[in-house]
Amino acid sequence: MAGSTFGTIFKITTWGESHGKALGVVVDGCPAGLPLTEEDIQRYLDRRKPGASDIATPRREDDLVEILSGTFEGHTTGTPISLMVRNTSQISRDYGEIASCYRPGHADYCYDAKYGFRDYRGGGRSSGRETVGRVAAGAIACKILGQMGVSVRAYTRSIGPIEADMSHFDENAVLSTKTAMPDFSADEKALAYLAQAKADSDSVGGCMECLVTGVPAGVGDPVFEKLDANLAKAVMSIGAVKAVEIGDGAAVSEKYGSANNDAFYREGKSVRKKTNHAGGILGGISDGDTILIRAHVKPTPSIFRPQQTVNRSGEDTEIRIKGRHDPVIVPRAVVVLECMTALTVLDAMLLGMSARMDRLTEFYRRRQ
Amino acid sequence: MAGSTFGTIFKITTWGESHGKALGVVVDGCPAGLPLTEEDIQRYLDRRKPGASDIATPRREDDLVEILSGTFEGHTTGTPISLMVRNTSQISRDYGEIASCYRPGHADYCYDAKYGFRDYRGGGRSSGRETVGRVAAGAIACKILGQMGVSVRAYTRSIGPIEADMSHFDENAVLSTKTAMPDFSADEKALAYLAQAKADSDSVGGCMECLVTGVPAGVGDPVFEKLDANLAKAVMSIGAVKAVEIGDGAAVSEKYGSANNDAFYREGKSVRKKTNHAGGILGGISDGDTILIRAHVKPTPSIFRPQQTVNRSGEDTEIRIKGRHDPVIVPRAVVVLECMTALTVLDAMLLGMSARMDRLTEFYRRRQ
Amino acid sequence: MAGSTFGTIFKITTWGESHGKALGVVVDGCPAGLPLTEEDIQRYLDRRKPGASDIATPRREDDLVEILSGTFEGHTTGTPISLMVRNTSQISRDYGEIASCYRPGHADYCYDAKYGFRDYRGGGRSSGRETVGRVAAGAIACKILGQMGVSVRAYTRSIGPIEADMSHFDENAVLSTKTAMPDFSADEKALAYLAQAKADSDSVGGCMECLVTGVPAGVGDPVFEKLDANLAKAVMSIGAVKAVEIGDGAAVSEKYGSANNDAFYREGKSVRKKTNHAGGILGGISDGDTILIRAHVKPTPSIFRPQQTVNRSGEDTEIRIKGRHDPVIVPRAVVVLECMTALTVLDAMLLGMSARMDRLTEFYRRRQ
Amino acid sequence: MAGSTFGTIFKITTWGESHGKALGVVVDGCPAGLPLTEEDIQRYLDRRKPGASDIATPRREDDLVEILSGTFEGHTTGTPISLMVRNTSQISRDYGEIASCYRPGHADYCYDAKYGFRDYRGGGRSSGRETVGRVAAGAIACKILGQMGVSVRAYTRSIGPIEADMSHFDENAVLSTKTAMPDFSADEKALAYLAQAKADSDSVGGCMECLVTGVPAGVGDPVFEKLDANLAKAVMSIGAVKAVEIGDGAAVSEKYGSANNDAFYREGKSVRKKTNHAGGILGGISDGDTILIRAHVKPTPSIFRPQQTVNRSGEDTEIRIKGRHDPVIVPRAVVVLECMTALTVLDAMLLGMSARMDRLTEFYRRRQ
Repeated sequence: MAGSTFGTIFKITTWGESHGKALGVVVDGCPAGLPLTEEDIQRYLDRRKPGASDIATPRREDDLVEILSGTFEGHTTGTPISLMVRNTSQISRDYGEIASCYRPGHADYCYDAKYGFRDYRGGGRSSGRETVGRVAAGAIACKILGQMGVSVRAYTRSIGPIEADMSHFDENAVLSTKTAMPDFSADEKALAYLAQAKADSDSVGGCMECLVTGVPAGVGDPVFEKLDANLAKAVMSIGAVKAVEIGDGAAVSEKYGSANNDAFYREGKSVRKKTNHAGGILGGISDGDTILIRAHVKPTPSIFRPQQTVNRSGEDTEIRIKGRHDPVIVPRAVVVLECMTALTVLDAMLLGMSARMDRLTEFYRRRQ
Repeated sequence: MAGSTFGTIFKITTWGESHGKALGVVVDGCPAGLPLTEEDIQRYLDRRKPGASDIATPRREDDLVEILSGTFEGHTTGTPISLMVRNTSQISRDYGEIASCYRPGHADYCYDAKYGFRDYRGGGRSSGRETVGRVAAGAIACKILGQMGVSVRAYTRSIGPIEADMSHFDENAVLSTKTAMPDFSADEKALAYLAQAKADSDSVGGCMECLVTGVPAGVGDPVFEKLDANLAKAVMSIGAVKAVEIGDGAAVSEKYGSANNDAFYREGKSVRKKTNHAGGILGGISDGDTILIRAHVKPTPSIFRPQQTVNRSGEDTEIRIKGRHDPVIVPRAVVVLECMTALTVLDAMLLGMSARMDRLTEFYRRRQ
Repeated sequence: MAGSTFGTIFKITTWGESHGKALGVVVDGCPAGLPLTEEDIQRYLDRRKPGASDIATPRREDDLVEILSGTFEGHTTGTPISLMVRNTSQISRDYGEIASCYRPGHADYCYDAKYGFRDYRGGGRSSGRETVGRVAAGAIACKILGQMGVSVRAYTRSIGPIEADMSHFDENAVLSTKTAMPDFSADEKALAYLAQAKADSDSVGGCMECLVTGVPAGVGDPVFEKLDANLAKAVMSIGAVKAVEIGDGAAVSEKYGSANNDAFYREGKSVRKKTNHAGGILGGISDGDTILIRAHVKPTPSIFRPQQTVNRSGEDTEIRIKGRHDPVIVPRAVVVLECMTALTVLDAMLLGMSARMDRLTEFYRRRQ
Repeated sequence: MAGSTFGTIFKITTWGESHGKALGVVVDGCPAGLPLTEEDIQRYLDRRKPGASDIATPRREDDLVEILSGTFEGHTTGTPISLMVRNTSQISRDYGEIASCYRPGHADYCYDAKYGFRDYRGGGRSSGRETVGRVAAGAIACKILGQMGVSVRAYTRSIGPIEADMSHFDENAVLSTKTAMPDFSADEKALAYLAQAKADSDSVGGCMECLVTGVPAGVGDPVFEKLDANLAKAVMSIGAVKAVEIGDGAAVSEKYGSANNDAFYREGKSVRKKTNHAGGILGGISDGDTILIRAHVKPTPSIFRPQQTVNRSGEDTEIRIKGRHDPVIVPRAVVVLECMTALTVLDAMLLGMSARMDRLTEFYRRRQ
């Protein structure tokens, strides 16, 4: 069934396979009047691009985005924005084992079980390349949120056992290091750790976080459309994510209530919290504080060691994966986390405009 | 905006506040022909009922469910099933501080920020009592899944630092212990730990897990309606849950790929995995193995110590919560986890019936 | 599959069968802060009530509505509003032929084909009594629209060949005549016509219209969520409606463009149309003019003549319907048309709040 | 808000403006394993193509479709199918009056009111060219339905006062006449009528019908997702349609019940109806008979006479529309009606697979 659409008012529909002709997204429900150029989107796509570094795949994919509809004279018109990235680097090749064997840790077997067959080229739809559409759409969401005073920033929290020291938090590091860590010294250690894993024909996992500031209190809809529930869905839908936490996350299960409750206090005319164990969300509704989401990412399943598996005929066999694969997924997934978070928060804010009679009638009174 | 509906084909809509006249749920899209009585549902509601134990609130709520529509001669008719539980134990009382102050760790402030005011009686819609509707609906989902060969079982994994020893797993313990732990000896330790917390006017967090067996490979829809993404949403939407994990969960971020990949092998005509780090889901689609979901629950925010907060007029103040509150949420939330999991899995299975042309045409050929 | 939910932001879910325990609706997404009492809703329910007149069934159904949730201190809280009407007049009786035969013009056969069996008591879910929930929810939508300056008014346009003379339009007639016609003299003729049909053991069809004023230009979302498209769905979903028209409707197919186009002109600071052939909607978006919807309703299928049919065993047979049935559906359906129209227009207006960046940023700037 | 997505399981999202770079559609939820080539889709697009005839615009638009994703080795894979048609014939030109004036009968004013500005080139998103995406998606729906034994056929019923004689029904005429009428002699008369209208710088309306055969009884979901309700929405969402009828449609309002009820009888093991006034749908559920939908289409609003209007500055003015415009919309809209009908029926059939426990458990038993 249709699973490639996300959002209610700000609704995106992604399409495309790893080695198909192109990938893209249709962004529907974008408010009219937003200045938008391909450059706005390209900046985000470039952050997920494989590239020159040792830890990202050496593939060259220019991933140039084309706006096919939905803008006029440099502004969004309120109609669907169709964005496309042509695939340029895929070459005709022998997919050999991938076509007939199920790669451990990948979705090959599940796709065959579900659909009867699969586009095995580069993983088809289950490839990380699928996130091109998410990021292109997310770039627009981020721009809108920026105009609303909301900032969304993701970064790598840890790679394997190497964790960023948050007291060294440096936003420049996020965009300039190969690991997207916010701590230059942790980045260095992580790179050494990755080099060793690569030498061992192995891969490693990691953890990433996203901070959202500027969201007013009151965003999110009980009881199933809670802001944290939708963030959990958005983030868990990113390939390789196996755990999602809000605020103190899993640690709460070992805490006392007296240590976990955030006391309220007054600051000027505002209500603030002394601590933020809650991660900016209480009862599924934003409380005005920084929203913190954490995602745990499994090690890249494509490793260069022989692995036991089964082929399409159901016979036991061994597979040796070839090709170019990142030894860690996190650094390139950081921008995906940022985009999925932005899409979720924006949609909740658009939906929240009609929560109160007074604001609703005021809004329409201005129109008359 | 409307946030009280969950599911696409098997769709539930819950309603009701903690101290309102009643709570309930409308279950729409239930297949026709399922034998269904109030007793089928009552059994599940009884598991979330506060009760006689020391760790659950001493309130008496009979929570008797009434089927108002959707069945005829003991079977579901395919039309909406309306289920209602009357509130009987709420007594007119002085809500004093709760009405005017924001309880730390609760959603009071967020509801006021969102809606302009709130039903403060017992927490209104943000109360844990809201889950009555989820459990009533989940009981039906569980019954349907049972007829399809799918079993869903949740239990308490840990309370504070006290963890169940899974090598002692005993299903009887889940339904008979006060903690809903699957391990009688851990239950004993946990009760002692809770008694101490209660004596300290404090509360504690915990962790719960859910196992789903019998789901065939191929359930779940990439890329946004992945089975794990929808489970994450379903579970994170349960009040007090702050983290959701699938399979090895957060631990994957410190693992090597060689240790995290699950090797495939053949067993009879089936494809199996030697390990189940993935928790039964790869690429968002079930792989035929046991599905494992883990949820971390924060300590009960209602504690009997004075806490600093702000009142509705925006003044700093101190609040002392009175009343009857569980020192830990987990034992009563276990059945909610079970129900939200069942609702998610069932909906995905119903949606999955049209994934393949061959099965689709076969299905309709039988109808002609 | 679930078909009993309508709307996106203002979302209603109806439930209940003709002769079940109760019928009702859950209204989710209602803005907080609306004054609401049972009386507000009862007034609308009373308009669809069968009653004392010759042309409505002599059944007594008090149809007293109960608000079970979603209000506090006389105002909506933003949480789901559960409304219930207990069935009081259904008596245990012999359903004989209805249980085993398919009534011509009714959905009996279709329900059996779809669900395998059916609740045959009074038509079950396919009864016109299902509209209790629609009307209860619509009453709330009408009240909100009223506060936004939008008025929704439906009436009977014709019964059989007897048409109201619109130059005699009298709103009082709508609420006081037995036919809900806006023309006292047409009402008189229609009653005579109905008396004759009843004497002939026959039933008749009719036509109803709804006028919506006060909707600003700009409501409705191309290309599938057009305002007229959603109105068409809303109105066609009313039992017995077989045709829906907007503005000049079916007559446009015989018109010239020069006669059908509505010229624009300026009036003060506003843009107006000299005529309103379009019925207030162009390109699926409101144009600021009165919205006109027309619905054609088939004759009551329950007639007191013997009719040829088939029984559940698939044998040819003859059925003689007994009981109390209105000889025409329209007068009691008028309020249903009004309510479905209101629900559709309100939802479109709530969805429309985020159509423009300037309004969106202004809205949230006021919140900071 | 997002309005460009249609369908629940078989879900399409269209995009593109009349004179933008391209138009297209993403088809999500298509069952895997359907043989599909660009030729399958092109055949349908060619039917809506403007062309060589006197009554269609002389513009040349090759409208060549490209499949960008979702197929592999000639078959659908179950992942989103992205279809694109590049715009080739749009030339840079002076849009003069269209940019600044509101064309009567068009959506120009409404778009400005809603979005603050508009892409005025060729009508932008409100152009009939928007249906390219609908037809491309509908072609796939038709192919799937064909494999399920369901046939969908639309044709022109009348143009102005010239009506096809259904006793002369000839399917070849539909595809070969310029009017898409099923009656060669009516086609001839209609062409003469159109020539006269054109000579008068005027345009005319018309009526089209669609017949669906092979749908088993039991398709459609009460009470809001009724098959006729969704057909009404689908068809009313086609630009210029102002009325939708099912079966006898508007005529029912003047009929007696004894003449409108369709008697059931037995034929072999099947239940049949002696007549089909209902148009194949009772209570919103298919009854196994031919489904008949009728749509009334307004005259082309672009006429070559001076018309009074208002410009963007709100001043009264006169507009003279230039360019190439069909004097009647119907012949090219017939395939759009066919496609929207197919999309609606297919989605309802896919949703209907889980209506009964017996069929559901049988389906999954086969999977184990």
